[in-house]
Amino acid sequence: MASDSQDVLARIEAEKEGYLEELKDFIRIPSISTDPDFKGEVLRASEFLLGKLREAGLTAERIETAGHHPLVYAEWLGAPGKPTVLFYGHYDVQPVDPIELWRNPPFEPTVEGDKLVARGATDDKGQSFAHVKAVAAMLKERGKLPVNVKFLIEGEEEAGGEAIDRYVREDGGKRLKADAVMISDSSLFAPDQPSLVYGLRGLAYMEIRVTGPDRDLHSGTYGGAVRNPLNALATIIDKLRDEKTGRILIPGFYDDVRPLEAWEREEWAKLPFDEDEYRTDLGVPELHGEAGYTVREQTSGRPSCDVNGIFGGYMGKGAKTVLPSWAGAKISMRLVPDQDAKKIADLFTRYVHSIAPSGVRVDVEALHGGDAVVVKVEGPIVEAALDAMQDVWGARPVRIREGGSIPIVSTFAAVLGAPVLLLGFGLNDDGLHSPNEKFNISHFYKGIRSVARLLDRLGEL
Amino acid sequence: MASDSQDVLARIEAEKEGYLEELKDFIRIPSISTDPDFKGEVLRASEFLLGKLREAGLTAERIETAGHHPLVYAEWLGAPGKPTVLFYGHYDVQPVDPIELWRNPPFEPTVEGDKLVARGATDDKGQSFAHVKAVAAMLKERGKLPVNVKFLIEGEEEAGGEAIDRYVREDGGKRLKADAVMISDSSLFAPDQPSLVYGLRGLAYMEIRVTGPDRDLHSGTYGGAVRNPLNALATIIDKLRDEKTGRILIPGFYDDVRPLEAWEREEWAKLPFDEDEYRTDLGVPELHGEAGYTVREQTSGRPSCDVNGIFGGYMGKGAKTVLPSWAGAKISMRLVPDQDAKKIADLFTRYVHSIAPSGVRVDVEALHGGDAVVVKVEGPIVEAALDAMQDVWGARPVRIREGGSIPIVSTFAAVLGAPVLLLGFGLNDDGLHSPNEKFNISHFYKGIRSVARLLDRLGEL
Repeated sequence: MASDSQDVLARIEAEKEGYLEELKDFIRIPSISTDPDFKGEVLRASEFLLGKLREAGLTAERIETAGHHPLVYAEWLGAPGKPTVLFYGHYDVQPVDPIELWRNPPFEPTVEGDKLVARGATDDKGQSFAHVKAVAAMLKERGKLPVNVKFLIEGEEEAGGEAIDRYVREDGGKRLKADAVMISDSSLFAPDQPSLVYGLRGLAYMEIRVTGPDRDLHSGTYGGAVRNPLNALATIIDKLRDEKTGRILIPGFYDDVRPLEAWEREEWAKLPFDEDEYRTDLGVPELHGEAGYTVREQTSGRPSCDVNGIFGGYMGKGAKTVLPSWAGAKISMRLVPDQDAKKIADLFTRYVHSIAPSGVRVDVEALHGGDAVVVKVEGPIVEAALDAMQDVWGARPVRIREGGSIPIVSTFAAVLGAPVLLLGFGLNDDGLHSPNEKFNISHFYKGIRSVARLLDRLGEL
Repeated sequence: MASDSQDVLARIEAEKEGYLEELKDFIRIPSISTDPDFKGEVLRASEFLLGKLREAGLTAERIETAGHHPLVYAEWLGAPGKPTVLFYGHYDVQPVDPIELWRNPPFEPTVEGDKLVARGATDDKGQSFAHVKAVAAMLKERGKLPVNVKFLIEGEEEAGGEAIDRYVREDGGKRLKADAVMISDSSLFAPDQPSLVYGLRGLAYMEIRVTGPDRDLHSGTYGGAVRNPLNALATIIDKLRDEKTGRILIPGFYDDVRPLEAWEREEWAKLPFDEDEYRTDLGVPELHGEAGYTVREQTSGRPSCDVNGIFGGYMGKGAKTVLPSWAGAKISMRLVPDQDAKKIADLFTRYVHSIAPSGVRVDVEALHGGDAVVVKVEGPIVEAALDAMQDVWGARPVRIREGGSIPIVSTFAAVLGAPVLLLGFGLNDDGLHSPNEKFNISHFYKGIRSVARLLDRLGEL
């Protein structure tokens, strides 16, 4: 075993183009977990992964759960006495709407310079597959690994990840026992600056449906005497947030919010950030968020509330003078420690009913949710991981919190009692969840090398 | 000429089933004028009508206009010295959304007892075709008519009717010169109670588009720092109307509203109306409209503002955590005398810009509009028309205003200086603009008989 990993790094260099082709095949499977119509494709993606893990030399199996899509589990435990790393990732992807904004078909990976453009390129097929190929390269080069590895890759992260949560809790750290969990489902802080994410926001995703008359009406004949469900829905949505201060108006919403610590605000303030560039990149005339907080604080340390979709009435071309029967909206709240996702969903539901205009029926459904998490990031394993990242990327990761949600992180931390290493290989402009999602091909390769270095460094502990 | 019209009424009775089959053929043509994809079908409907008018013995021609769809014009002028009646109608129909709520394909007319169910069954193919068949029956029976008749039938009423407006104004009462205009595009007051509609509301139909970031964003990564266009749109919509009083909040909106006259409020109050039945029929827990006005006043004598459609972000199944790039809404206002549709569109636009939250771009477009109208309904021609209706329906029409818009009515009144007779054969529960639109077949037949009686009665003046 070479502690500088030169043998494995050379192997990766020699075979990387093949890895990229394999990743493309993986991406071509449209494994959209939120849409029941794609159930078969999600299953096909799990089969693809199982095949690659077995090819690499791991024992692998599909685990059926109470959820909609199976877990993929694999292990190589040939290093007794050495630490065990559990790699987590997900093989499902987001829907592709709005499809008309894609430059290429979303499931036909397209190379544009250093970019691989496709749905799932970075989130999370590309990043998760880097783990797989690092282990595969090492086993091929050396026939063994310096540590034990386990893989647990889920197929419904984008749909709430409830099945894996139950599975991990029920396992209780037996089969999944590990000394560290590694997750690559986040971004570098900047192109040459990796980051270790120690906090993630939680999520409460809700759907509101407002029902008025039992059929669509002519707006001329009835307009003026009947509460319009679309107007009523707008009223409800408008009352969720204070338009000026950006504060969420649901009573009790902030009760359990853990204030940002002084050291966090200080350390984040030192990170390079150009607000003008950020604003220009987004193409908005000005930024808007909760008063009294910086953009980084607003997007990672403070909760938010966004309408994700709204629909009802006539949405086609031209004009139709309809007074519609119903209207709907998808609304999600990003949560921070120590908000409880279930409690927030309840508060939301109660509040929406309390502000609902008369003359319509309002139904509220909690689609899914997960708590925010802040993980402990100290000790020799964490230091080894930071060293490994520094070896490959040339800079030591900075510690930040991120705005997205990875529901399983808090469960891993609680059940396994091991550090959870959120070390991402993506970039903030990868466009995850957006049209033309991409992953820098060089980052895919660096990701593979990072994992190889990590395994060697952990083997030396 | 039999002043009791028995000859023609017998002819109608003998041939009515054939008329119904012809109407079904007319309805089968999906002449949706608001959707450019159906342009060819609208043209086909005009050809169908031209054929039927020529078959009846009229000279007929298609008139191309600056609009999207042609006018159908026909005339029979063989009664010199006698009055001339101009029949107006429209051969275009509303879109069919939401298609999933139709019991049958919308353009496959289905007979359910006395009901003919299809898009356009009542609005306005069925009603307008009754005019055509009455004239056809009379010409077939007698070889001549007691008065002169003209037909002007348009193909874009549901799309704003701007072309016919220009055409009528440019004609200036030359070719279209008439002593009365008859329009059947409204409802009876109740099943056994015809009505003469002397007022219609106007319309200002607007579209708002709110644009935020130049691409869809991940709501976790960006949520909290960027103004969400869907939230912003809801804020704008909520500020259009006072949720409690139902008053429209656009400054200046009510400035030109002509107050209801005392006699109108008194006469309408005497009309039979069961608010509970109305509410139950609509399936709403309670009615909601402008405070201080009855339902009839709210829906015909007072302006209204309704969102007709709203859209943006993720509208599919399940959950997608997107912070969308844009959102849109279609919003229309029903207007009353003496509001000016163009002025209202301007006030709306200015107000929406003034209340638009920061951080997004807001675009407002006026899709189309028309002024409200109140027509004079007195004199011998009007009395003859009321007599004719009484002959067929067994009750003399009551005078009411209606909530819908027929943009051309005010133009006819102004340009031709002749009474405009809004005598409808439909029912309030016909579901025009809704799924499962229907026309009572017995009303179709009575409509044909009404026009035959009208022609004979006018011939006696």
